[in-house]
Amino acid sequence: MHQNGFILWFTGLSGAGKSTLATYLAPKLKERGCKVEILDGDEVRENLSKGLGFSKEDRDTNIRRIGYVAYLLARNGCVSITAAFSPYREIRDECRKIAQAPFIEIFVDAPLDVVEARDTKGLYKKARAGIIKQFTGISDPYEPPHKAEIVVKTGDESIEESAGKILKYLSAKTLIR
Amino acid sequence: MHQNGFILWFTGLSGAGKSTLATYLAPKLKERGCKVEILDGDEVRENLSKGLGFSKEDRDTNIRRIGYVAYLLARNGCVSITAAFSPYREIRDECRKIAQAPFIEIFVDAPLDVVEARDTKGLYKKARAGIIKQFTGISDPYEPPHKAEIVVKTGDESIEESAGKILKYLSAKTLIR
Repeated sequence: MHQNGFILWFTGLSGAGKSTLATYLAPKLKERGCKVEILDGDEVRENLSKGLGFSKEDRDTNIRRIGYVAYLLARNGCVSITAAFSPYREIRDECRKIAQAPFIEIFVDAPLDVVEARDTKGLYKKARAGIIKQFTGISDPYEPPHKAEIVVKTGDESIEESAGKILKYLSAKTLIR
Repeated sequence: MHQNGFILWFTGLSGAGKSTLATYLAPKLKERGCKVEILDGDEVRENLSKGLGFSKEDRDTNIRRIGYVAYLLARNGCVSITAAFSPYREIRDECRKIAQAPFIEIFVDAPLDVVEARDTKGLYKKARAGIIKQFTGISDPYEPPHKAEIVVKTGDESIEESAGKILKYLSAKTLIR
């Protein structure tokens, strides 16, 4: 049974594949004996941050809470996977500092034109039309990480390739078997 | 290594001994191989509920968040100990429902006159003087549980006796060895 917790912190634009990758990876980590918890945007907002909006301050508060819960889980031996937006570099770095456990930032690097062309949920169209305000990448900033532990290019790679990169990294760091 | 998580939900008046008991129990559970996380009032408020006040609605929101985090930890094999106020029965019962893990409510039953006479932090004096508003038991309601799994009488029992009751219950339910 795996006992050492760590945090996989996905960051990237909407539609880049953060949640998809998180959901794909979770059972692979469980197969290797890890306890895994996915802290995803909507569920966490509902349970920890109801009432908060999308101003910078509110987004920061939401991300700090996710960081706190990710840290509690990781220090109890769980793999915390976060797939919320976390558009601001400074707050991600703050979460890294409090983590007290390996913090692996994964930049899900799909260019805006690619995710906008996909637009699986029709959100970019609504954001361009001004129906959704403060939309990350369109009307709200996204700050990519300077030094992510892992970069996956979901515009070019298959999900298997991206997940493979992550598992390879975790093995090399002896975080998983 | 202990793997089955559960929730120890302490409830009782300010000064009844919730945090003291939680802090006393945690190392005893760790000795038995449990992962243990104490979710106490102030730290949780700071990290999950900054900005919330002490109205019924805000208290409920705070307790729901604690319940959610306790549930996440417990389902990953951790013993979650909560020692926040949780004055309202309905919200405690709601937390019990979402728990998906054994939920052991522990009523730390010390009468108001006892905790007020102790007044270790001087809070009751301030509450009586009206300096602290909405103080549980004085100017804000406290609803004791109808059917707590465990009742400890910290007015009459030593901390060893109260903790002993709890450990005995957990052993009998085979939640600990």
